[in-house]
Amino acid sequence: MRELFEPRAVALVGVSRQTGVGAYNGLEMLVRYGYRGRIYVIHPQAEEILGHKVYPRVEDLPEIPDLAVIAVGRDRVLPVAQECFEKGIRWLVIITQGFADADTQGKSLQGKLVAAARQYQARIVGPNTMGVLNAFNGFTTAFVDLSRPPDPPPVALVAQSGAPQVGAESFTGPLGKALDIGNAADIGFVESLEYLEHDPQTRLIALHIEGLKEGRAFLATAARVNRTKPVVIFKTGVSEAGAKAALSHTGSLVGEDQVFTAACRRAGLTRVSTVVELQDTIKALVKLPLLRGPRVGIATPSGALGIIALDALSREGLTPGPLPESILTLVEPQGPYWHALNNPVDLWPIGMLTGDFLKVARDTLTGFLADPQIDGVMCMLPALSSPLHCNIIATPAFFGDLHLEKHQKPLVVAMYGNARDEVSRDLAVVPGLACYFSVEQAAFALGQLYRRHQALSRPLATWESPDPEVMAETPAKSLLLGQEALDFLAAYGIPTPAGSLTHTPDQAAAAATACGYPVALKIIAEDFLHKSDRGGVLLNIGDERVLRAGFSRLQQFLVGAPPDGSTGILVQKQVQGRELLVGVKQDATFGPVVVCGYGGVLTEMWRDTAQTLAPLSPYQARRLLASLRSFPLLTGYRGEPGVELEAIVRVLVIIADLATSLPSLRELDINPLIATPTGCWAVDARLIWR
Amino acid sequence: MRELFEPRAVALVGVSRQTGVGAYNGLEMLVRYGYRGRIYVIHPQAEEILGHKVYPRVEDLPEIPDLAVIAVGRDRVLPVAQECFEKGIRWLVIITQGFADADTQGKSLQGKLVAAARQYQARIVGPNTMGVLNAFNGFTTAFVDLSRPPDPPPVALVAQSGAPQVGAESFTGPLGKALDIGNAADIGFVESLEYLEHDPQTRLIALHIEGLKEGRAFLATAARVNRTKPVVIFKTGVSEAGAKAALSHTGSLVGEDQVFTAACRRAGLTRVSTVVELQDTIKALVKLPLLRGPRVGIATPSGALGIIALDALSREGLTPGPLPESILTLVEPQGPYWHALNNPVDLWPIGMLTGDFLKVARDTLTGFLADPQIDGVMCMLPALSSPLHCNIIATPAFFGDLHLEKHQKPLVVAMYGNARDEVSRDLAVVPGLACYFSVEQAAFALGQLYRRHQALSRPLATWESPDPEVMAETPAKSLLLGQEALDFLAAYGIPTPAGSLTHTPDQAAAAATACGYPVALKIIAEDFLHKSDRGGVLLNIGDERVLRAGFSRLQQFLVGAPPDGSTGILVQKQVQGRELLVGVKQDATFGPVVVCGYGGVLTEMWRDTAQTLAPLSPYQARRLLASLRSFPLLTGYRGEPGVELEAIVRVLVIIADLATSLPSLRELDINPLIATPTGCWAVDARLIWR
Repeated sequence: MRELFEPRAVALVGVSRQTGVGAYNGLEMLVRYGYRGRIYVIHPQAEEILGHKVYPRVEDLPEIPDLAVIAVGRDRVLPVAQECFEKGIRWLVIITQGFADADTQGKSLQGKLVAAARQYQARIVGPNTMGVLNAFNGFTTAFVDLSRPPDPPPVALVAQSGAPQVGAESFTGPLGKALDIGNAADIGFVESLEYLEHDPQTRLIALHIEGLKEGRAFLATAARVNRTKPVVIFKTGVSEAGAKAALSHTGSLVGEDQVFTAACRRAGLTRVSTVVELQDTIKALVKLPLLRGPRVGIATPSGALGIIALDALSREGLTPGPLPESILTLVEPQGPYWHALNNPVDLWPIGMLTGDFLKVARDTLTGFLADPQIDGVMCMLPALSSPLHCNIIATPAFFGDLHLEKHQKPLVVAMYGNARDEVSRDLAVVPGLACYFSVEQAAFALGQLYRRHQALSRPLATWESPDPEVMAETPAKSLLLGQEALDFLAAYGIPTPAGSLTHTPDQAAAAATACGYPVALKIIAEDFLHKSDRGGVLLNIGDERVLRAGFSRLQQFLVGAPPDGSTGILVQKQVQGRELLVGVKQDATFGPVVVCGYGGVLTEMWRDTAQTLAPLSPYQARRLLASLRSFPLLTGYRGEPGVELEAIVRVLVIIADLATSLPSLRELDINPLIATPTGCWAVDARLIWR
Repeated sequence: MRELFEPRAVALVGVSRQTGVGAYNGLEMLVRYGYRGRIYVIHPQAEEILGHKVYPRVEDLPEIPDLAVIAVGRDRVLPVAQECFEKGIRWLVIITQGFADADTQGKSLQGKLVAAARQYQARIVGPNTMGVLNAFNGFTTAFVDLSRPPDPPPVALVAQSGAPQVGAESFTGPLGKALDIGNAADIGFVESLEYLEHDPQTRLIALHIEGLKEGRAFLATAARVNRTKPVVIFKTGVSEAGAKAALSHTGSLVGEDQVFTAACRRAGLTRVSTVVELQDTIKALVKLPLLRGPRVGIATPSGALGIIALDALSREGLTPGPLPESILTLVEPQGPYWHALNNPVDLWPIGMLTGDFLKVARDTLTGFLADPQIDGVMCMLPALSSPLHCNIIATPAFFGDLHLEKHQKPLVVAMYGNARDEVSRDLAVVPGLACYFSVEQAAFALGQLYRRHQALSRPLATWESPDPEVMAETPAKSLLLGQEALDFLAAYGIPTPAGSLTHTPDQAAAAATACGYPVALKIIAEDFLHKSDRGGVLLNIGDERVLRAGFSRLQQFLVGAPPDGSTGILVQKQVQGRELLVGVKQDATFGPVVVCGYGGVLTEMWRDTAQTLAPLSPYQARRLLASLRSFPLLTGYRGEPGVELEAIVRVLVIIADLATSLPSLRELDINPLIATPTGCWAVDARLIWR
């Protein structure tokens, strides 16, 4: 992929003869951006564009460029690509729109492009892309005139749009490298991450994702890269309307957002929800050391801002640390006698008395930075343009005196006032310091640093599949219900209550005697779902008389039903305990997902469920259960005993393995799984196969 | 209060002889800010400061100024105030810190100040304040050099801090008027609102609130003012740590934040949670018409930004409206044949083809604005500094062509790119348009406009108390439990099951016969709370034999308990149904609050409760119930019947009236209130009196 970011020679096909305002001339933009490699312009008619010799056809080029950029009309893209491949060009950036993002014809054209590339072992970026940007060597394929940062930051962006390159200041902040993968017909997030992982000019990778194709491969790569270079994810298309639009924008199929969230959490990735969060997070992770604990030291020129800071830190799960002894002995005595210090330290009354606000601020910040009971520091600072207040403006030298590099603690500044733009621009060069324009954004930055610290403290997630040989074949039927479903689960070690499907009262009585009273009776039939609501379940039957009465009541529901092996009335040993639902489903992006939650009749009302990717280790299964609001019911609640947690953990691990090794299993629901102090039992289940 | 904002003459006491950098000289700031009234400087030694004649004492002044600004050390504040009162000055701004914000001595001094003011019928702003700001006439009491907006906006701020005046650009945006009430010893939010309500230069009032003293009076005033001038509330001290700091900053006592939220909702006020939200909301409410429905038209130069917009709008409860016919017939045909339009409208492919991006944008926006099925419009626009892109920059003339005033629909622009500061500054003059720097902030602005529209669609909230004469006296005991509590409630019309407190098995048997089996047995004793968990409740007792066995079991718990009239075993008619908890409590800020929620043994786990201020109309009680997650259980859930909602509504209205008319009732809990299809009954209750 180095040829893509650092081509020695590039061919431009589809350059306009027009230049200047409104021309969107890629050649013009490339030259203005400062590219120093060899440029070959291909145009059927022109002889010269912007002083560059023009070649009529790709085959006429005197060498094989590392890369061709194609911006012809969509109907001419395929023949031009073919010419490039035949010339021996191995990298194409296809700017042109109108492929999978447009109509079925475009989709088919895109398929042909990829097939042709495969044949020549060439790679394609796009189509529907602004392509590649490298601020370090001045290379860009953009058709917009981008401004090149003089000192490119170690930040790379991989996006499904060119807009974040065009308006970098508004999205990620300045970029060192960027790639718009557009429709991602060929090059996608995984290859991009693999390249940037080893790129010495990149220390942080931001991803703008509309949809992922190979969710598992992506996660494994991103999780690994993220250990050394923060991977920050801005996932869009999270709403229903947004997901629909993503499908038509880049042809991206979007999975369930809750699953995406669970996947990022498992992989330890940093996820953001808004553009502002994206920019604030990148700044924090590039400029600051991690926050290794939740205790923050706060310095403020205004009590009111200190309160706002406490509110904001609390939302991030952070707390004010204890006031360092050094501040108490060094700073407090300088203030008025009635001013007792706290954390936040209110600097103003002291600064007014001493006449040197900045010294008080410096002493306070030094006290916080040096104290082992403080993990990070937050400071509110005014930046006023009035010449009367030039003496309270923090300068790079002010922060230099703090020796931030020595302490390895993050310092965030919330800067306010009419000179904040200029002052924070001056401070941008100070290492170990990041300026924000609101208290809440500064607190959020600390929160992101703490969350990354926590994510890195956990072991690297893996999603290895169990040996598929261990697992059985797909059954012949696409739907398993009742005892058939339970028998299937029992074969894999999931406990089920004794029971059998019966068709006559005598059969039922014999079955009940065999498993022992009390028993439950349940109608089993494909078209008889939600059977509890419809009176199709009778519980706690204590003797044969009640059993026979119940049986004949339920039988009425089955009149006219085809007598087959999977329809009938299930007689089942009654189990009493906490009801859970557990199951697996297939996500469009990430494949098998495990779900567990509060079960029983109020399931839909409380919606207390949690999910994560399969497979699961027992540890992960325990964490999943512990994330439920109803977890206290399982550990013992208000005098009632808890249940055998490890039995549920075993079931979760088994069904996660099942889902991973049987990709044709589309859906498996156990509802309820009944848990008691001595075990748990799948009491009703449903399996759907592809 | 006009004397405060527009004094014809002002006395400054405590002006320093020092001026310039670091002097914080109030006289210097006042002159620089452009005040044109008469200024009297009082100083014991100086003869002249900054060219102003100095008077040694207040009594020496040649006239009675409208206002005195006091900035002497805290120990001299009271004597100076006294001098001012004696001179006849009726308004004081006390800048000095170190009163209720500091220590007990300061608190006592503050009390004396207020007492002195009362005596002279004078009013005090502060202490611990930056005081007043009026950008229209150039008056300020600030000791910081503030920049005065040349064309002051109709925005007023009342705050408990000077920081938002100092850094207005970072908090509210430019201010027309501001008042820092500091410790609010005398002048508070209510008086400020009453003044600004009739101030013709003010169209929006922002409040920065740490704590409220007279919650009810504030709400009534704010709710009324808010009907004509938006009242935007930034409440701080919402976290536990923040609330503690608020107490020490301005001596503010903070109530429960959930109650504050409920109060704002009832009053229809606009509340924000962060400084950025504050600024974004003010801009929207000052510049834009309200959003009268949820359907938004979206125009975007990038499909990716359209998706981000949909996600953001969805979080605000807004939706993309149907694509107007006019856009389909006028705009779509200009684009490439494969580009089918949707809402969001992707402008770029069309603009690239026609070569006139702004015309496409204008046609699209016009189509949205004119369509009756679109309630508001959102547009993403690039602002690039490159001269090659000067042709795609939206100008005031571009928006002038849209005739926004005609359509009365809000238009928000999310502007991105390296020239966004300059371009949006140019656009600030366009009426009916507001620029934001991220898609999510623009969507939030529309959300705020929609929420205000909804709030104004509801009738003005009132909190009138019922006639106190109707209600009974406080009982002699501070705690009522069991049958005593139920008897109290029954006296006010709350249904309770038949029952009586018993002390012997024979009494219990007689009581059970009187109310009819099945019955419940419950231990009633002050120190026997959580009785269900401790085995102190026996339910569904069907006959006398079981009753007597149960009675003797429960009796063991009471061995050694003092035999008094309120301890014993309650025999109660068994009621079966849905369990709720309902109750009232007293909030530190707003007084009586009604709570209702899911009841029974899982109450603490699900935490499904809702609260609002008492008293309640039946309509408000219904809304409260409907906001519960468990509301479906009351209306009928999965085949089970619902309960008699109106019976619960009656109970809520009664307890809300009780709480309002009996201020000595500190807490009332009914748990459970059991509801059935034919009514509801308070089955257990607890009342605590002051």
